[in-house]
Amino acid sequence: MHSPVEATLQVIGSKWTVLVLRELVGSVRRFSELERSLIGISPRTLSMRLGNLEKNGIVDRKVYPEIPPRVEYKLTALGRSLEPILKVMHNWGASFTKKNA
Amino acid sequence: MHSPVEATLQVIGSKWTVLVLRELVGSVRRFSELERSLIGISPRTLSMRLGNLEKNGIVDRKVYPEIPPRVEYKLTALGRSLEPILKVMHNWGASFTKKNA
Repeated sequence: MHSPVEATLQVIGSKWTVLVLRELVGSVRRFSELERSLIGISPRTLSMRLGNLEKNGIVDRKVYPEIPPRVEYKLTALGRSLEPILKVMHNWGASFTKKNA
Repeated sequence: MHSPVEATLQVIGSKWTVLVLRELVGSVRRFSELERSLIGISPRTLSMRLGNLEKNGIVDRKVYPEIPPRVEYKLTALGRSLEPILKVMHNWGASFTKKNA
């Protein structure tokens, strides 16, 4: 690990991870809802990304003992602390995409 | 491309790219200086990362016709507009690394 910036990238810096985080900003989501929103993601990849986020304390997973079991994901306080980063990345990317359109 | 956040990731989101950018914040650097600072980077990888940053308008490359030729890199105005992102990523990563130490 060379730097704090790199640590942040390791937590959020893969394509699907930022898209999963974006879905969870301000919302509690079920696995199946995430799968439907993230077009093209495989259940295996979604599961791995959520698992890493949970391991890093970014996402909280709650299982409700229903039949069939309901599994919900939401951001932890640490996860919510990523929102300003996602926001500046969003704004910069929107302006960059516009310039290069 | 799913989102502006993803556009930003595509521009800055590889390990060496953020480290190259960090070296260029506030400094003009020669290729050889970057190579020395970024321990473990291959000349080929450094060259490709700088080439992509130049193509995206983030980095400006200037060749001075000396013998041997001197090649200098610096951030463009667009590149400098990434500084707030790198800064929030730095701060978040520093706090995250401390928590997980």
